[in-house]
Amino acid sequence: MTDNQAGIVTAGVILIGDELLSGLTQDTNLKTLAEFLGPLGVQVREARIIADDAHTIRDTIRAFSHRFDYVFTTGGIGPTHDDITADCVAAAFDLGISEREDALSELRRRYTDNELNSARRRMARIPDGAVLIRNPVSQAPGFQTKNVFTLAGVPRIMRGMLEHIPHRIRGGAQVHSRSVTAEGIGEGDAAAHLAEIARAYPGVSIGSYPFFNAGIRGVTFVARSADEAVLDRIQRELTDLVDNLS
Amino acid sequence: MTDNQAGIVTAGVILIGDELLSGLTQDTNLKTLAEFLGPLGVQVREARIIADDAHTIRDTIRAFSHRFDYVFTTGGIGPTHDDITADCVAAAFDLGISEREDALSELRRRYTDNELNSARRRMARIPDGAVLIRNPVSQAPGFQTKNVFTLAGVPRIMRGMLEHIPHRIRGGAQVHSRSVTAEGIGEGDAAAHLAEIARAYPGVSIGSYPFFNAGIRGVTFVARSADEAVLDRIQRELTDLVDNLS
Repeated sequence: MTDNQAGIVTAGVILIGDELLSGLTQDTNLKTLAEFLGPLGVQVREARIIADDAHTIRDTIRAFSHRFDYVFTTGGIGPTHDDITADCVAAAFDLGISEREDALSELRRRYTDNELNSARRRMARIPDGAVLIRNPVSQAPGFQTKNVFTLAGVPRIMRGMLEHIPHRIRGGAQVHSRSVTAEGIGEGDAAAHLAEIARAYPGVSIGSYPFFNAGIRGVTFVARSADEAVLDRIQRELTDLVDNLS
Repeated sequence: MTDNQAGIVTAGVILIGDELLSGLTQDTNLKTLAEFLGPLGVQVREARIIADDAHTIRDTIRAFSHRFDYVFTTGGIGPTHDDITADCVAAAFDLGISEREDALSELRRRYTDNELNSARRRMARIPDGAVLIRNPVSQAPGFQTKNVFTLAGVPRIMRGMLEHIPHRIRGGAQVHSRSVTAEGIGEGDAAAHLAEIARAYPGVSIGSYPFFNAGIRGVTFVARSADEAVLDRIQRELTDLVDNLS
């Protein structure tokens, strides 16, 4: 595990919902979160996609909270019976949970007293001590409990919530990347030389991603590191590698 | 946990690759696997997206192999230095691993002797006792080790491999679904009645999925169960619920 490398700030992502495991829904939130966190200097180390099961949700939150600097959950904070994430966050940290006036105020921006029935009021149940996260799309808030950010599952709402939290995140070294794409060569042609480059730069993640698009095969090489000078050197070596094979 | 419900056959999915965690690549393999397994009577219970880290891969395979009836890994079986999944499968089961003649034969269908360099020959390294899985796209095979199926990460290749394995999977009760979609109503309007329906059918997973498309909001309710007669009853109740709200 490289979770605790010096200077590296880590995140774990927990995507909650039966619909993601049944094939009903294609998740896109993980990619959105990774693209949001990278520029803040936070690296996603692992993601889990789990069912709407209270024990699984609680245990995963608890484990991830210890293991990573930040944790992001998506899904399960709506008004229906299968929305159990808030209770699971409270259980994970042995906290109470109750309807909160600040969360109700947010809901009142959207709903009339008549619309604010008991189901919708459930969305104002927040673990004790949690700090709300504004929802600019449909008002029902997310919340932050210690290092765990609990966000909506609907992609547009999750993206809206992310706009309100960058100042709460203290990132570390920002990891940059350089990529070199070559058409018409196979991974296997480049592999030996690529392994030499990877060995020469042990702290750098160097990946090789083949593609087959509309009959054209090729490879993209991607190097990732916090050290941009090193990345520039690697990019030149990768470019030379590709030129020698073409 | 509901992993061991009577008649239910379960799967865990392990998606391997730094590129899925950095935001470089959008995974689609989980949805493909869920859609492939559902009709065979296998339910995906959890998925993990993990980095190209040998210990993490090994430990996750080992844990999932005990916990689920079937396990599917994707990614990390190509010719380059970051392709370490085969070694991790071997390590997870304390098996040897070596270049295998049956796997080399597959590679020879594609590569000349000259092209079959040492990097490409790595793709013929298979854990002892594993059964190959044909790759109709680029020949480098996947393989099955006990209850673990090791597949390619490139979506087109993974889909090709899946065509060759249905006969190796012994599914259980097939889970069916019924859905009712209603535009113009909110989840919160339906929640109380929906919870009553869910309570009346404790063995059935009933989910509620709001959407906001091009200014139109609505909800899709989805019921999932092995019992189609029960699903038909629930579908009628959900339709009544929606009619009463419209």
